[in-house]
Order: sequence, then C-alpha cells, then structure tokens
Amino acid sequence: MTNPVTKNYAHFEDLFVDQKIDLGATKVTKEMIFEFATEFDPFPFHLDEEAANASLLGGLSASGWHTGAIALAMLLENLPSKLATAGGVGFTNLKWKRPVMVNDTIGGTVTISEMRRVKSRPEWGLITLDFDIRNQKDQQVMTMSLKNLVDVRNPAAPIGEALK
Amino acid sequence: MTNPVTKNYAHFEDLFVDQKIDLGATKVTKEMIFEFATEFDPFPFHLDEEAANASLLGGLSASGWHTGAIALAMLLENLPSKLATAGGVGFTNLKWKRPVMVNDTIGGTVTISEMRRVKSRPEWGLITLDFDIRNQKDQQVMTMSLKNLVDVRNPAAPIGEALK
Repeated sequence: MTNPVTKNYAHFEDLFVDQKIDLGATKVTKEMIFEFATEFDPFPFHLDEEAANASLLGGLSASGWHTGAIALAMLLENLPSKLATAGGVGFTNLKWKRPVMVNDTIGGTVTISEMRRVKSRPEWGLITLDFDIRNQKDQQVMTMSLKNLVDVRNPAAPIGEALK
Repeated sequence: MTNPVTKNYAHFEDLFVDQKIDLGATKVTKEMIFEFATEFDPFPFHLDEEAANASLLGGLSASGWHTGAIALAMLLENLPSKLATAGGVGFTNLKWKRPVMVNDTIGGTVTISEMRRVKSRPEWGLITLDFDIRNQKDQQVMTMSLKNLVDVRNPAAPIGEALK
C-alpha cells in the first residue's frame, strides 16, 4: 500500500549506515535567543543582556533546548529529500558540551549510525541519527542520538538483522 | 561570595532527593503546534490538519521536541522558588511514549532523583530531574532525565558522597 503523498520521499531502503548529512550554518541571534527563552526557558542568562554580559560566560547564551530544536530544523532542511517518517521515538545521551553564545554560527553533521527493521511492525524501520553540532570555531557544542521511525517502501521484504 | 541577584533563589542546599514538583496543566492548541513545528519540525503530521485527520493518528500531533520544551517551561513555572542554576548539562533516555494530540492537556511531575556536589567545582551541584509527562487521561506521553547544575550556597562545606 503506497502512500501517494510520501511515495517519492526517502524511505528506509533509500538510507544507509554511515550516511552523513551536512547541516549547513545557522547564526543564532539575540532575537532568536529571546524569543525561544521567553516561551520555554526564561532564565536571566538567556534573557537579560546586561546580567549575561557581567556573568562568567560574558554574554547571552542560547537555551540548550533551543540548540537542539535548531539542530532538528537544520537536519530537516538539509536532508537530500523529504523523509517518509512516522516520527521520533526518543533520544539518548544529549550532551551540551559548551554554551552557544549570541551570534555564534552553528552547524555540524548528522550521521546515520544504525538501522534496523521493526519486527512487530514490518512497515517501519528504526534509524539512529547521531548529531554532532559545532560552532564557528569547530568546537563541539552539542551531541545527541535520535531514534526515528522511517517508512519501509517494501514491508514484505524479509526482516534481517540490524544493518550494523 | 554571594551573588546578590540569586541569593534568595533555591540553591543546592534547599533541594532534596525525592522532591517532587507538580507541573500543573497546559493545553496544547493547534496554534501552539503550528507555531513550533513551522520553525523547528515542519512535518505534515504537525502542520497539515486535513492530512493529519486522514492519517492513522486521526489528527494533528505536537512535535516531540515541542512537548519537551513545554515540559521545561512548566517546570520553571512551578518551581517553589527561582532556581540558582548555571544551566543544563544534558539528558538521558528521553522517550516519547505516545503522541500528544491537538487539544490534549499535558502535565505530570518532575522528581529530583539524584544530587551530588561537583568535585572539581565546589560552587556547583549536579541534580538529576526525572520528568514524567502525562496527558489528561493520565497516560504517559514522555519521560526524560535532565542533568542540571545548581549553585551551592556554601561552597566551603565538605563535599560528601552523592546524596543518593
């Protein structure tokens, strides 16, 4: 049963282990930091420029949760084609390695580190996406591993072992 | 060295293992789902009401990353007092257990499951916050464990073992 909307999107069979997606570059502005932090993470070091300038970090920093959301948006923008997905399952090991400061430009890569079919749901595959997010100095600012369900184009194909 | 801004905020010494914070209730509206997903997670099941109604889930669902950000905002809103914090370190085991659908009301609790001083930085303690996020039917929709740095009021106090 092919879904007419997603039939030309990337399916499980179109992806491969060690596939890398370059995330491009996003400048994290004061306005972006304010907007996100006001709604979700209202701490002074994200919202009060004067206090932030006087603090140890010496300036405004983005909410770590914001960095994660930006990384997700960059992945979706930079996928070679749209992805036929039933959504995310969860994350492991999200680490904020260093702060993202105002006017930093972040980028990095996402690597598909693991792929397997879902035995109980032949129409789905589970892929692991390792995020390596860096600033303009090539310093790592965040890592995380996202597990995501991807539609299988041919669910009748035998389900083998994990591809890695 | 007391920080005049945060001296009345909750410090490491004011928190305790097994402390529970009730998150109150937030209704997740169509407008909230659209706004977040447009910026960070632009998939049709978050943005296209007609397509979402026709899908297996039968309606719009919130971005899982959005659910996490809402949970963070609810924690900050419902802390008994402001928190003297140097920010988050990361989280483990974020799991989206079931979708958050449009007009669901989410809530739940955060429990401090572990606390320890940071040996190399006597001015900081590290606390683990276990999120248990549920919908209006008391079904679990998301869990995660966030590690966060909290200022120690008296850094000269001896650093013992972990409190749990």
